[in-house]
Amino acid sequence: MTDHVLDASHIHTSWNRDLAPALRAQPGDRVTFDTLDASGGAVARRVASGELDAPEGLRALIEQDAYPALAGPRGHPLTGPVFVEGVMPGDALVIEILEVRAAAWGWTGCRPDGIGLLDAALGEEGLQPYTHFWDLREGTHASFGPGVRLPLSPFPGVVGVALAEPGDHATAPPRHVGGNMDIRQLVAGSTLYLPVEVEGALLSVGDLHAAQGDGELSGTGIEMAGQLTVCLGVERGTGLTTPEFITPTSGGASGRWHGTSGHDPDLMTAARIALRAMLRRIQTRGFTLEEAYVLASACVDLKISQVVDAPNYTVSAFLPLDIFVDN
Amino acid sequence: MTDHVLDASHIHTSWNRDLAPALRAQPGDRVTFDTLDASGGAVARRVASGELDAPEGLRALIEQDAYPALAGPRGHPLTGPVFVEGVMPGDALVIEILEVRAAAWGWTGCRPDGIGLLDAALGEEGLQPYTHFWDLREGTHASFGPGVRLPLSPFPGVVGVALAEPGDHATAPPRHVGGNMDIRQLVAGSTLYLPVEVEGALLSVGDLHAAQGDGELSGTGIEMAGQLTVCLGVERGTGLTTPEFITPTSGGASGRWHGTSGHDPDLMTAARIALRAMLRRIQTRGFTLEEAYVLASACVDLKISQVVDAPNYTVSAFLPLDIFVDN
Repeated sequence: MTDHVLDASHIHTSWNRDLAPALRAQPGDRVTFDTLDASGGAVARRVASGELDAPEGLRALIEQDAYPALAGPRGHPLTGPVFVEGVMPGDALVIEILEVRAAAWGWTGCRPDGIGLLDAALGEEGLQPYTHFWDLREGTHASFGPGVRLPLSPFPGVVGVALAEPGDHATAPPRHVGGNMDIRQLVAGSTLYLPVEVEGALLSVGDLHAAQGDGELSGTGIEMAGQLTVCLGVERGTGLTTPEFITPTSGGASGRWHGTSGHDPDLMTAARIALRAMLRRIQTRGFTLEEAYVLASACVDLKISQVVDAPNYTVSAFLPLDIFVDN
Repeated sequence: MTDHVLDASHIHTSWNRDLAPALRAQPGDRVTFDTLDASGGAVARRVASGELDAPEGLRALIEQDAYPALAGPRGHPLTGPVFVEGVMPGDALVIEILEVRAAAWGWTGCRPDGIGLLDAALGEEGLQPYTHFWDLREGTHASFGPGVRLPLSPFPGVVGVALAEPGDHATAPPRHVGGNMDIRQLVAGSTLYLPVEVEGALLSVGDLHAAQGDGELSGTGIEMAGQLTVCLGVERGTGLTTPEFITPTSGGASGRWHGTSGHDPDLMTAARIALRAMLRRIQTRGFTLEEAYVLASACVDLKISQVVDAPNYTVSAFLPLDIFVDN
């Protein structure tokens, strides 16, 4: 059993089976990955240049991370790939998530022309680009203004292995070999199983989130740099076809929840209806549309209540009321 | 404040604004609804006729519920409607769920040509019609064979008010005024808010479930007759456009979970991929395909992990491992 550290000089921004391994490891080895935030430092650079405002207490910390822009294709900055000796196509790569260490700060954003679930609709209502900065130094919670405290539950947004198909593949879509899955239950204590398609698997990770709701509604969780430590293993010839995992949490907090439900033949439309009602609900507490959207992305869960009552299916959004200090 | 009881002689099987009220109540009143199971006694009649086999210890109990078939349009047997005095279109009807009392037995079924998420695909693999009977008399848990114990969490599958649009409307699809929403978090202690479209709201309820996973994957939860007690209220001119609720649970149990994830541009397809992998996982514990499907419908949760990483979105299925006694 060897402990490896892979620093953030080993960055790539697309999936490609022909990337040279940054590290060779054995099953049973532990690897700690230094990771960059999803923007590759762009958010910090915009603060350093004065283009983006940041809270006084965080500005110096953020400016420290304003390193030069990465070269290469545009995509999530991923740390890796790790070649795992003896792992072959048809095996499952076993990734035990031992520790997820957060950075000192994080950000969550929205814009009218981004990837968020309601960007187009809210853009027509005048949604403005907005970036919220979070102070993560307390460790267990982060504040969103004086009345709102979110529990932190850090996890890697991206964990994936190389596709058999040659060439560059974008990092944005997750696939059957993992990648940008944004499964918020992949916290420390989880074990992830990924189908292996190339010899050595070629594992890469990145895009750590300090917290996120199921859905990642505005398109970002609490985005941050950080460190991820995993223990690697292999299961032989499992016939695994899609990612599976064991997790100590389904993501539910304790306490009371406010739910909103959307009904539609299309699940995506039902999700939009539920989220729209949820944003209105959050706004009644005095938040702007942008604040509501960003806060929902960080903590509101989308669940599929039913997929069988045709022609309308139900998606419900859940807001944990415990985040409100005066709840 | 008056306590009302509406017995199961007040049944209707479609939504219609012109149904005569079975009861007139005031805001602040409590109403207890006697409800029939979703099949309107058909499952019990099939046991009584010998067409369907039931466990020896439950047969007599089930046969007691083999009452004659209901007349009228085919649909969920709903108890109601209740006219709530002074409630007007534009108001929100407030339904505080005080108690959900389970029957002594329940059932969960699957078939190759039903409404379940994988019926078509599994039908091609030889899925057979199957009905599992549950003994609910213990109250807190129900067994699925010797090694599996499910926590019970009873709730009404259908809670709805009349649509403004005249005529009969099918009970199967839920709508913006509620109905067959199958939101498993509507347990005792919850408060549901429904948009009112006709004077008096015309509230009806039914289709109680002793437990269900988010998604109701095979098309049925633990279906049962039972009693529902609610306290009625009104909020004036809320502009509510879709159901909202406060709930003491997001549906997460404690313990560890097995997750499977599907990735696809279509959320329904992603859900199917996740469920297919989950059924394989449950089958490795020695269950038949039919048992796995029915068990999943009763306890596996579908969550939307992300809806923003185009072109592939992620749906994850969560199996609570605490249900396995030897876990």
